[in-house]
Amino acid sequence: VSCRSGARPTPRAVVVLSGGLDSSTCLAEARAEGREAHALSVDYGQRHRGELARARRLARALGARDHRVVKVDLSTFGGSALTDPAIAVPKGRSPRRMARDIPVTYVPARNTVLLALALAHAETVGAEEIFVGVNAIDYSGYPDCRPEFLRAFERVARLATKAGVSGRPLRIRAPLLRLSKAEIVRLGTRLGVPYGITQSCYDPVGGRACGRCDACVLRRKGFAEAGLPDPTRYVARSQE
Amino acid sequence: VSCRSGARPTPRAVVVLSGGLDSSTCLAEARAEGREAHALSVDYGQRHRGELARARRLARALGARDHRVVKVDLSTFGGSALTDPAIAVPKGRSPRRMARDIPVTYVPARNTVLLALALAHAETVGAEEIFVGVNAIDYSGYPDCRPEFLRAFERVARLATKAGVSGRPLRIRAPLLRLSKAEIVRLGTRLGVPYGITQSCYDPVGGRACGRCDACVLRRKGFAEAGLPDPTRYVARSQE
Repeated sequence: VSCRSGARPTPRAVVVLSGGLDSSTCLAEARAEGREAHALSVDYGQRHRGELARARRLARALGARDHRVVKVDLSTFGGSALTDPAIAVPKGRSPRRMARDIPVTYVPARNTVLLALALAHAETVGAEEIFVGVNAIDYSGYPDCRPEFLRAFERVARLATKAGVSGRPLRIRAPLLRLSKAEIVRLGTRLGVPYGITQSCYDPVGGRACGRCDACVLRRKGFAEAGLPDPTRYVARSQE
Repeated sequence: VSCRSGARPTPRAVVVLSGGLDSSTCLAEARAEGREAHALSVDYGQRHRGELARARRLARALGARDHRVVKVDLSTFGGSALTDPAIAVPKGRSPRRMARDIPVTYVPARNTVLLALALAHAETVGAEEIFVGVNAIDYSGYPDCRPEFLRAFERVARLATKAGVSGRPLRIRAPLLRLSKAEIVRLGTRLGVPYGITQSCYDPVGGRACGRCDACVLRRKGFAEAGLPDPTRYVARSQE
């Protein structure tokens, strides 16, 4: 076994980690690809903030190098059921309906803000990649989950940064982009993601998932179609 | 005088307002173009935070419809003299040197983060434009001040938002992009910008400008070349 001094160092990646099913799978994929993973969560004033504590546990469980939480108060702007307690989270929407309409859970420019912060972090730690768990198949109809959005942001990242100027351009990686929720669940299960820790629900009650918001509907469908047991703890019907 | 009911409503714009010379001139320009201006300042942990109080006064003086301050802690990432007190702000650099080297005052991905937050605000208030005082002539050599960066971000803005989806695409306006600092000072003076309130200095001492950081050097040069009196209060040499 030779260990040449010219060996390439471990490539670094920033992984946007919400604490949900998709971003956790994305972190596991970055690790499986041999990346030194710098997990980044964003506290944007979301009502389902319990996911931040889950993110911390998941970063540790999946071998991230470190984990940071950046606070930015998107609730100052209002306009979304995810940050404004006065707006109800819609329940019982079909996946077909989700793909057609932008729902009130949409947080204005959320993915642009998340990626901008990930870019700042990437530049500071010297990462060459940003992994993000965006998915364009089983998604809630948000415009900033589309592949063309990610390509456009990659261009911004290259032009905005020192790295881009000096010729080591950043890449935006979205390994789940073309996967169905069932395929994501199968991939994550193979990679050992502890899905019992992840939280997807937009409107949890006492740490349990509501089972009926868009995120819960898609998650349930994913486990069902993958033929795998769903470890999520849902609220009892009577508690709704 | 007729007031037809089909009259076009006043166009709305979000104006990124730091409290400095450029962004204040940019706000005045937006107002001169008849925009209903929604001023947005970002508290990103900058050491020259006095500019936020100046921004509030300037928003009022220049007739902005409202003014918001959004907090995002970029100092979590470190790596810049503007957010890390342990890194000294460079003094006495020539404008030629600035145009060549990216300095330690560069805040990783700052303009990407500012524009992402402006985009979130624009979407919430229904603005069609984002005005930003970016300048590619007399600037400090930051990569995210270049025209191609702004064009790339405009594409992100269009793809990221509901407005872009429904066919009313957002525009990124940078009216100072091709102006020298002297031309900016002349424009702002014509539009009545109270430059005595603005603060450009990266490293003010007791509310007075240091006179020697990149921002002070460019500002002084601007007033001198415009042949206009510089109302800035600088620290006395002995206080440095």
